[in-house]
Amino acid sequence: MQEKDKAQEVLSELSSGAVSIARLAEKYHQADIAAAINRIDDNELIIKILSELGNDIGSEVLTHLNEETREIILEKFSTEKLGDFIEEMSSDDAADILAEVEVERAEDILDNVSEEVEQDVQRLMEYPEDTAGGLMQTELVSSPGHFTVAEAIDNLKGMTEEIGDFHNIFVIDKDRKLTGVLPLQKLIISPNEARIDSLLEGQKPIAVTVDTDQEEVANIFMKYDLVSIPVVDGAGKLLGRIMFDDIADVLEEEADEDIMMMVGADDEALASTHSAIDTARYRFPWLGSSLLGGFITGALILNFKATLSEALALVAFIPVVMGISGNVGAQSSALVIRSLATGRLDAASLKGYIYKELKVGFLLGSGCGLLAGVGAYIWIGSGVLGFVVGVSIMISLVFAAIMGAVIPLVFKWLKVDPAIAGGPITLAMNDITGILIFFAMAAILLAGIGL
Amino acid sequence: MQEKDKAQEVLSELSSGAVSIARLAEKYHQADIAAAINRIDDNELIIKILSELGNDIGSEVLTHLNEETREIILEKFSTEKLGDFIEEMSSDDAADILAEVEVERAEDILDNVSEEVEQDVQRLMEYPEDTAGGLMQTELVSSPGHFTVAEAIDNLKGMTEEIGDFHNIFVIDKDRKLTGVLPLQKLIISPNEARIDSLLEGQKPIAVTVDTDQEEVANIFMKYDLVSIPVVDGAGKLLGRIMFDDIADVLEEEADEDIMMMVGADDEALASTHSAIDTARYRFPWLGSSLLGGFITGALILNFKATLSEALALVAFIPVVMGISGNVGAQSSALVIRSLATGRLDAASLKGYIYKELKVGFLLGSGCGLLAGVGAYIWIGSGVLGFVVGVSIMISLVFAAIMGAVIPLVFKWLKVDPAIAGGPITLAMNDITGILIFFAMAAILLAGIGL
Repeated sequence: MQEKDKAQEVLSELSSGAVSIARLAEKYHQADIAAAINRIDDNELIIKILSELGNDIGSEVLTHLNEETREIILEKFSTEKLGDFIEEMSSDDAADILAEVEVERAEDILDNVSEEVEQDVQRLMEYPEDTAGGLMQTELVSSPGHFTVAEAIDNLKGMTEEIGDFHNIFVIDKDRKLTGVLPLQKLIISPNEARIDSLLEGQKPIAVTVDTDQEEVANIFMKYDLVSIPVVDGAGKLLGRIMFDDIADVLEEEADEDIMMMVGADDEALASTHSAIDTARYRFPWLGSSLLGGFITGALILNFKATLSEALALVAFIPVVMGISGNVGAQSSALVIRSLATGRLDAASLKGYIYKELKVGFLLGSGCGLLAGVGAYIWIGSGVLGFVVGVSIMISLVFAAIMGAVIPLVFKWLKVDPAIAGGPITLAMNDITGILIFFAMAAILLAGIGL
Repeated sequence: MQEKDKAQEVLSELSSGAVSIARLAEKYHQADIAAAINRIDDNELIIKILSELGNDIGSEVLTHLNEETREIILEKFSTEKLGDFIEEMSSDDAADILAEVEVERAEDILDNVSEEVEQDVQRLMEYPEDTAGGLMQTELVSSPGHFTVAEAIDNLKGMTEEIGDFHNIFVIDKDRKLTGVLPLQKLIISPNEARIDSLLEGQKPIAVTVDTDQEEVANIFMKYDLVSIPVVDGAGKLLGRIMFDDIADVLEEEADEDIMMMVGADDEALASTHSAIDTARYRFPWLGSSLLGGFITGALILNFKATLSEALALVAFIPVVMGISGNVGAQSSALVIRSLATGRLDAASLKGYIYKELKVGFLLGSGCGLLAGVGAYIWIGSGVLGFVVGVSIMISLVFAAIMGAVIPLVFKWLKVDPAIAGGPITLAMNDITGILIFFAMAAILLAGIGL
């Protein structure tokens, strides 16, 4: 049973002296210790705790801290002490943390670790963050296919300390090429004398290459319900593995990115550690396109000054047209963006998808157009105005639905993140077309007839 | 290495006769076979393939099919055959699939399975879908703490066929109360004569109760980097387990839900299997609040008819004010909603968060107000209008930022999903306050001075 606030518990036990720092880890999980430290304001105390936890637990806690608190440690600790932490960490965490300090300091820290760790971490730091290479760790359990179960288990007993959690054994040939993936549960229940390669199923092992995009890695993980995936180079040689918990982070990160882009903000704005000024900076640029869109729409409206001065009641429908077409467009983009991100929409189903969106736009347009048209008629008392409002909303919504769906697809085709298209850009375009259709219709119909 | 389109490969090999249905599973993963079947239009062929795959593979494929294709099988197959599939499935998949057919048919199907499976599945079907109970499966590996490693392994060899994948052994006492969780890797490397409970670490095992909300389960999973989590009843008795792949599904589902709610649509709209009419139905209701918001904003504008007829240029700034305050409000809501969903924002950090949002709103408001004010001055050539535009945008944005953040929090406090607040409701409220501030200022300043 999960207590609500373990971090608070850690803090009160620490301050009351009920538990010493050195014995914290016996009672609490590293993640809870880290959550508690994140809440401490006193830098001296944070440093004291990290120093006294010991390198093993300390390095685990360091990876769980938030960036702001970790920065304190990375600044104040000596490069020797940080080297001790890095030595204990898994290679992917080490590479991520070293990427947070300046290049020179990272090099100084790496001078204090064993050559093997240094090489591993340096190699990992070269891969782009959002690829399989940037996610993987080099620690893994492999076994030649000709080993027997007993030999593989003996082998495990010697190496398991350094590996961290593992649930699979990666089977390799003499060139270190991956030939299969063997779950531990199969190893445990198989007879000691069985050959490892005789336990593999016939299928080719599921693996990704170092340059695979993290979103695709996540989709493969989910499709095949994997617990870890081997990462290979172009020739099929085993380089590392990615664990399910890294994938869970990717899923959250991709969702954050999609959502933030759709409202026009950098997902960096989500980090609670940024100052108000930095957060504003991550949100400001997109507002520019919103402003520009507003000015263009405004200019369009002023173009219809003559129509407006004849029938001022038209202004009352500017918010109606803008609101509803923006909403329909946002729905369409969000649907396409999520369907692309999760792999539900692929090239094979594209044509059908757009055709369906056209039908949906028509249905929504008819429904909303009817409602708004009747509403306008009742409110203003003009049948012509009701007709203009109703029909122009119907047409705008078909446009909004199609543009909302197509713009992200065009972005995808241009190899730009489609989520960008979900934001202010599509919204502004929908405002512009909606207002244009509305006023053009009004100008044509009202010029002759009047309200 | 992952080929791009395994499903296509399956289809062409099947139609060319390069592989027979019965041997498909030797060459392809169930997920790929299912993806291929999803693309077949010929119902007879779908039924033929599922029949010939055998119960073991067939039941796996059935769980991987999309809902539309699965519906064909659930309709056409006899309750006996479906019972055979259910018998082979893990209990959570069985319960999910039976929830897709009518209650009576589900009962008929359950008449064809063993009593043990029937009881398990029926119990699972009683838990709400979005709780730990609704996610868990009853198949798991447990061991009394007094067993030795050798006894536990012997035990495993007998039972592993029915359990599916497992990576942990749940350790229980004589009342079936959970006392610990032992990773397989620890079991493998420990001496045969060691007692299981001597291998456990001192900490209380991490577990959830059946009624824990799925979002919280996912957050616990991610915090502690778990691969599976035990589910217990109020007394701590072990009832089931949830696997990481179910959690990955939850993360996607929650992200989908958040995103769809934020654009004002039911996340059901994402399912590609719905007809255009159904999709429109899932998107329509929210548009109503958008329409209503538009009408209210429009009515507000008409209230300032006198001001407008004096200075018609004001209409040009309706889209500017609406667009920018809508955008800032959407950013603020999205930030709060994601931070709440992922557990980054909790009660302890709430006050600081809102204060920061106030500062961010002020910074964004000042920046955008200055830009828009200067833009308006240059465009229309009136200093007074520039001042009205600039200052009213500044004030509106502070309001929009605060309302965008506070409304989701109020929803959360009312125990309504905060993501709902990210959608058309907040947008409409921001439109209304933005327009009100703009026109009120304009009316006051312009009444005396004129443009």
